[in-house]
Amino acid sequence: MSLYEALFHYDALDHIYSDGECVQSMLIFEAALARAEARAGILTEPVARAIGAKCRVEHFDIAELKRMAASAGNAAIPIIKQLTELVAAEDKAAAGFVHWGATSQDAVDTGSVLQLRRALELVDQDLGRMSGELRTIVELYRETPIVARTWMQQAMPTTFGFMVAGWLDAILRQRQRLAELRPRVLVLQFGGAVGTLAAFSGRGLEVAKALTDELHLPLPEMAWHSHRDRMAEVAAFLGLCMGTLGKIARDISLLMQTEIAELSEPAGPGRGGSSTMPHKRNPVTCAVVLAAAVRVPGLVSTMLAAMVQEEERGLGGWQAEWETLPEIVCLTGGALHHLAKMLPGMEVNSERMLLNLELTRGLIFAEAVSAALLKTMGKADAHLLVEKACLKAVEEKKHLKEVLGADPGLQERFEPEEIDRLFETSSYLGNAQQFIERVLEAAAATGTERGEN
Amino acid sequence: MSLYEALFHYDALDHIYSDGECVQSMLIFEAALARAEARAGILTEPVARAIGAKCRVEHFDIAELKRMAASAGNAAIPIIKQLTELVAAEDKAAAGFVHWGATSQDAVDTGSVLQLRRALELVDQDLGRMSGELRTIVELYRETPIVARTWMQQAMPTTFGFMVAGWLDAILRQRQRLAELRPRVLVLQFGGAVGTLAAFSGRGLEVAKALTDELHLPLPEMAWHSHRDRMAEVAAFLGLCMGTLGKIARDISLLMQTEIAELSEPAGPGRGGSSTMPHKRNPVTCAVVLAAAVRVPGLVSTMLAAMVQEEERGLGGWQAEWETLPEIVCLTGGALHHLAKMLPGMEVNSERMLLNLELTRGLIFAEAVSAALLKTMGKADAHLLVEKACLKAVEEKKHLKEVLGADPGLQERFEPEEIDRLFETSSYLGNAQQFIERVLEAAAATGTERGEN
Amino acid sequence: MSLYEALFHYDALDHIYSDGECVQSMLIFEAALARAEARAGILTEPVARAIGAKCRVEHFDIAELKRMAASAGNAAIPIIKQLTELVAAEDKAAAGFVHWGATSQDAVDTGSVLQLRRALELVDQDLGRMSGELRTIVELYRETPIVARTWMQQAMPTTFGFMVAGWLDAILRQRQRLAELRPRVLVLQFGGAVGTLAAFSGRGLEVAKALTDELHLPLPEMAWHSHRDRMAEVAAFLGLCMGTLGKIARDISLLMQTEIAELSEPAGPGRGGSSTMPHKRNPVTCAVVLAAAVRVPGLVSTMLAAMVQEEERGLGGWQAEWETLPEIVCLTGGALHHLAKMLPGMEVNSERMLLNLELTRGLIFAEAVSAALLKTMGKADAHLLVEKACLKAVEEKKHLKEVLGADPGLQERFEPEEIDRLFETSSYLGNAQQFIERVLEAAAATGTERGEN
Amino acid sequence: MSLYEALFHYDALDHIYSDGECVQSMLIFEAALARAEARAGILTEPVARAIGAKCRVEHFDIAELKRMAASAGNAAIPIIKQLTELVAAEDKAAAGFVHWGATSQDAVDTGSVLQLRRALELVDQDLGRMSGELRTIVELYRETPIVARTWMQQAMPTTFGFMVAGWLDAILRQRQRLAELRPRVLVLQFGGAVGTLAAFSGRGLEVAKALTDELHLPLPEMAWHSHRDRMAEVAAFLGLCMGTLGKIARDISLLMQTEIAELSEPAGPGRGGSSTMPHKRNPVTCAVVLAAAVRVPGLVSTMLAAMVQEEERGLGGWQAEWETLPEIVCLTGGALHHLAKMLPGMEVNSERMLLNLELTRGLIFAEAVSAALLKTMGKADAHLLVEKACLKAVEEKKHLKEVLGADPGLQERFEPEEIDRLFETSSYLGNAQQFIERVLEAAAATGTERGEN
Repeated sequence: MSLYEALFHYDALDHIYSDGECVQSMLIFEAALARAEARAGILTEPVARAIGAKCRVEHFDIAELKRMAASAGNAAIPIIKQLTELVAAEDKAAAGFVHWGATSQDAVDTGSVLQLRRALELVDQDLGRMSGELRTIVELYRETPIVARTWMQQAMPTTFGFMVAGWLDAILRQRQRLAELRPRVLVLQFGGAVGTLAAFSGRGLEVAKALTDELHLPLPEMAWHSHRDRMAEVAAFLGLCMGTLGKIARDISLLMQTEIAELSEPAGPGRGGSSTMPHKRNPVTCAVVLAAAVRVPGLVSTMLAAMVQEEERGLGGWQAEWETLPEIVCLTGGALHHLAKMLPGMEVNSERMLLNLELTRGLIFAEAVSAALLKTMGKADAHLLVEKACLKAVEEKKHLKEVLGADPGLQERFEPEEIDRLFETSSYLGNAQQFIERVLEAAAATGTERGEN
Repeated sequence: MSLYEALFHYDALDHIYSDGECVQSMLIFEAALARAEARAGILTEPVARAIGAKCRVEHFDIAELKRMAASAGNAAIPIIKQLTELVAAEDKAAAGFVHWGATSQDAVDTGSVLQLRRALELVDQDLGRMSGELRTIVELYRETPIVARTWMQQAMPTTFGFMVAGWLDAILRQRQRLAELRPRVLVLQFGGAVGTLAAFSGRGLEVAKALTDELHLPLPEMAWHSHRDRMAEVAAFLGLCMGTLGKIARDISLLMQTEIAELSEPAGPGRGGSSTMPHKRNPVTCAVVLAAAVRVPGLVSTMLAAMVQEEERGLGGWQAEWETLPEIVCLTGGALHHLAKMLPGMEVNSERMLLNLELTRGLIFAEAVSAALLKTMGKADAHLLVEKACLKAVEEKKHLKEVLGADPGLQERFEPEEIDRLFETSSYLGNAQQFIERVLEAAAATGTERGEN
Repeated sequence: MSLYEALFHYDALDHIYSDGECVQSMLIFEAALARAEARAGILTEPVARAIGAKCRVEHFDIAELKRMAASAGNAAIPIIKQLTELVAAEDKAAAGFVHWGATSQDAVDTGSVLQLRRALELVDQDLGRMSGELRTIVELYRETPIVARTWMQQAMPTTFGFMVAGWLDAILRQRQRLAELRPRVLVLQFGGAVGTLAAFSGRGLEVAKALTDELHLPLPEMAWHSHRDRMAEVAAFLGLCMGTLGKIARDISLLMQTEIAELSEPAGPGRGGSSTMPHKRNPVTCAVVLAAAVRVPGLVSTMLAAMVQEEERGLGGWQAEWETLPEIVCLTGGALHHLAKMLPGMEVNSERMLLNLELTRGLIFAEAVSAALLKTMGKADAHLLVEKACLKAVEEKKHLKEVLGADPGLQERFEPEEIDRLFETSSYLGNAQQFIERVLEAAAATGTERGEN
Repeated sequence: MSLYEALFHYDALDHIYSDGECVQSMLIFEAALARAEARAGILTEPVARAIGAKCRVEHFDIAELKRMAASAGNAAIPIIKQLTELVAAEDKAAAGFVHWGATSQDAVDTGSVLQLRRALELVDQDLGRMSGELRTIVELYRETPIVARTWMQQAMPTTFGFMVAGWLDAILRQRQRLAELRPRVLVLQFGGAVGTLAAFSGRGLEVAKALTDELHLPLPEMAWHSHRDRMAEVAAFLGLCMGTLGKIARDISLLMQTEIAELSEPAGPGRGGSSTMPHKRNPVTCAVVLAAAVRVPGLVSTMLAAMVQEEERGLGGWQAEWETLPEIVCLTGGALHHLAKMLPGMEVNSERMLLNLELTRGLIFAEAVSAALLKTMGKADAHLLVEKACLKAVEEKKHLKEVLGADPGLQERFEPEEIDRLFETSSYLGNAQQFIERVLEAAAATGTERGEN
């Protein structure tokens, strides 16, 4: 783990993509292959056991694997070489059956799918956890007024719960996408040198089926050595997730600005503080999530560009995936994990939200007033009246309510308390609560637990 | 359509994304909104009719719309302004209800979804057509021998049908993805200024439901003004498609090289020929598809990067989508269309495929020979024998079969006709036919018609 | 110009990349080629004149060119065909010399370089104009206090002029880069079918030299049909520019937020206003610049990816450039133009800047206080004292100055007016003025005019 | 170094970007800062020595640094913390002056510039080495005939030296770019918390100047904390390099195809061979270079997108650079190194080049024939005659020369040996030799050594 990876990744996911686990995943394939071939009568049970016994990463010299990988052109070739030597040391005949009938890419790709299976399980869990945290925030603040901002300008009132329901809604869709792609993507790669399983004299399909049993990975219609849409789909999905996470982090960081101060990441020792600037509460988690959101789109484009692979097994495109996909998984999974973990401690300053709603001295209620006036006058007249009042409020630095209250035209039509009510946030929230309800129902339907906030 | 767009796009899709259809799509939203509001009692039937009557692009001055859009910041504002004037010319009161309660983005996004719905229908049809064409090729050439190439080097024999089955298999997955995303993506955008439908005094949901009826677009859980995963998902899906199309075009262009000459794009007047180089048959369709495959990944990354939008409606991210998504749709849809249309005319030179199988003088059968030897000797011995024979064949420029036939060690173990059989392509195709069958069954299951090849 | 292009592009640049100018640029090449060949004695002056007379876009049917381009695979082939017909109608013999010895790509690339030459001249002018505007702002506000923000949190005082000097400094570097790349990039493309000018029987270099005279374009070492670093370098340079413009627009949009309100884009009819939200001043120019900044990086990656072109002339990569580079030029040039044009009208609210400096009640001066204390106590003690005071100020919602003033430890060491001075912005600006001076000198050195602000 | 990095990177460059060197580079900044401050009288010589003595990475606990970096938000904060503790253990007072007046970003960015300086030196050396190797190949094969291919189809004759001169020409431009950007990019970062060097009470510039002396890094006009064009320019330059390298690797891999076999990567134990497919010589170096060429464009787009940083120090954009730029350097530098190292061993099969020139039975000389005929007949007639002859040659599978020789129309005009000469490659190479000469002169002008081929 490089110096900077420490900021972006997190342990459990990083472990899956460690060198050791990468090698081990290919060894799991090799051991399962031997067992499958034993079941199909290609080799004997003792041979399969002799091979399987050596398929543990502890027996391997990873530094040497790296050196050899550079000239061999992939990591499977040296792994198979070392494995063969290890087996041969105990059982020369068995050594001849190591990796029998498979191609390097079968080991690399299936190993990579096994890693993905574990990684996507973690991502799913964290999407669930995130949904739970967001659900709790929505429920706690569903009626808490906050100003909605469009084009980075105050627009009209909404509630903080409504805002967060939008975040939750997006996360729920991501989880739905993940559920759809897992069965399509998490499949066996097994085709031999050119996809036909030629070395098995016609019994390849039998071996393949035994192998799917061993690894609990479905058998695809055919090998996909140079058809990489499955890997690219995982990348694209994670790119979508990352976009949603980035959006949430952007919102939080905007609401954390000193001048807005509606939200705050949790404080803690060594966490986002600055000894020489004690007033600062740096949004450290947002920084990491936003940085990941800058990085992932380019990596996804690499995975898409890499799809143009040549003939039965490509030159360059496949190799381009090897570090790119793990990086996408670790960046997105890490951002998700860090954000989900930060949320329960996030401070919500609902008092400040109220104060900010007053910053424009009622101007954010102008549309509400116009709408109310329509009951008693034409749209054009209403619009004109409000526009004039707004201008006056700005010029005289008065509250719009005050200006309107002093307008003789309005005094005729509205009781003072009616005017007051127009400037209550709660009067101009439309169907916010129903929309929140719809999202909460969708969350409940996906079995999202409530968060611990 | 710019000078160069002509190469990439195709008419039907281009039409959907013409300026006129873009404006018309927003007008369809405006007319439907008025009708929905009439159904909800917000305005009267005659008002809805007065508005609807003007919602036809022929009444609009598109050049003026463009000029105004530049300072307004989006295209909906000037459209609504022109619409209001058109309605006002006939019915002043009705004009006050144009776009009532909606925000510009409701019109822009729903208009864009309506365009997408039509475009994705075309993409689906062309994926179907493509599957059909590929299916026909698979069936015609399922047993036609061709050499499989890995790392851009001849590897071992396969069949042309098997190769194309890989293409078909990938296209089928793309169509499955499309089916999954359509219901999630093709939904209404309707939230008013900040997503709460505040202007409707609580009756917004009722209007929204009427609007979904009018437009036959489902109602999402809530508005998605600044949650752009739906649009980005379409982009990502098309990026995956483009990768598959690029892979197919790469394969065709490689097999079309003068020195390989196994495939050829159809000839025709003004099509890929060169008057000064009469021997050339330029792969014009491949060029377009490959160029699109270079362009789309970067555009997809733009859509992903654009997802990080601020608060209730973003600044910059949303605007970045406007030209990017249509470009992705037109490039991918165009590439798909052009490739599907070229396939029935593609010339397959199976004679040349046979000749190329002989280029290495039997060396591509070395693995087959080793495998066969295993029946009568150990793996190491078999490997050594074949390796020596290969070296000798290369040095003496003899056919491997000849060298092996002259090897006394082999003469003991094999009848000459057995050796001959080892060098027949059909003896070393493994489970190619079963894999082809699996793909054809999957194609049949999705209702893919047979192509017209 | 599509509906949305209107927002991003601007007229002069858009004109250069119109279909007409694209065709005309290739015709300029064809006419100059004929003249150059006449000078080299390949053809006669009258033939050159007969060809030149028809090299005007008005004679061409652009719609037909597009149709033909789609099947020919590029735009030059149909242009040459139409040109030949036009010439033949008047002078059959001359028609045989149209495009003599050149390849399509010579026309397309040189035409594209001619367009670029004009476009980069506009970009250079706008970089100059932008520098001028920024220089004026720096000079006007070089001592105007504003709070510097890091991690989107208030940090310490700076001046608005210092902030803008950073913008100017970056723009100056961009202009320097442009000056460096122009001579390398703006060169002739002329090599014939495979770069050797074979058709000229050895007199190609003579023709090439005459052609460089005609077009005032230098002759490169050799043709660069499949070496695209020149085009990609333009793209990369514009990508760097776009990053700087995006950074400036991000800053402006952040300082325009309702809660900060230190800057404001100019108001105007139909410009960023909202009839129903009269308080809003939407940052329309920033939106366009930020959107372009989201779009350009992906397009640059396309240009880089497209560089991997095959052999003497590539398949797909070259074609991928055709729309991508113009798009990058128009987006970046447009953003630059719009931003430079907006700057003179940008409102600077220095009063609000002062108010915002007070928002933390003195906490942003904590580092200044610590630094001052160091004269009379150790760093650790100083730090502790300030940290305690800060905490107290936050808890008791008092100004830090007040808390410190009441601290007996400090009263001994500092006169009250000394404490006051610590909280004056001007006391803690370090070398801001000298750095500003350095940037202004660099600006003067590049001949930047003062803006009209 | 991860399992797969081993394939892409190379030792010397990888070492520069190891965790240890990353930390050490920041420590070099901290030590130099202390010395510079001593020179400016901010602190004493003994203090500077006490600090400098601990600025060695061996004293640091890197695992702990990583852990702390994750919550601190960058790597400099924990480094400074450990450094302070190390100094304090020996000299409490000196510890108070560690990192005095600087901000974390000053250390991170200057450290990163120091790493870049070393890395770009290596890149420059390898560009020089590459130029040398290419120059040797150009000189060796400047007259060796090979067929030029356009659109991946045989076009016309050229020489292998001419082809490689194109590669060399592009590499020379890359080196020129590198020379231009180094002085602009390799500069000090030093501004303190917000760029003003406020903590130095006006003596910051003096310290800054002393620091530039210490580090031999020029002083920029002002700090560039949130103006990242320098870092992005390095990325863009490397992206351009990578494009050229990818183009060269694509060419080599195409010419290595079994059916073309004009070039071959060197063989060697464990290098690109396949035990079961003994005829294969996999282009391992090309695979790595092509994979890097797929990966780098997306990473460059990340660097460009990251430029949009907020205010005085950004949130997310800066952090996005940390792993991205080193990755770009290592991938591009690695590809360059591997390719330069492979070139001297690359096998050139000029015999095969000749054979391939004959594959079309003379059709690639059709343009040459047309050109020759023009001396004695009109262009239209010449064209018609050749076209008919070509068609006949294709239909009857005869050599074009034979068909033409039998044409009575030609027999009148040409002596048989004239016809023969038309089909000699050397007769149709135009100005190839002069263009080669121009490139070699440019190479000599940049002081490129001859390679060791």
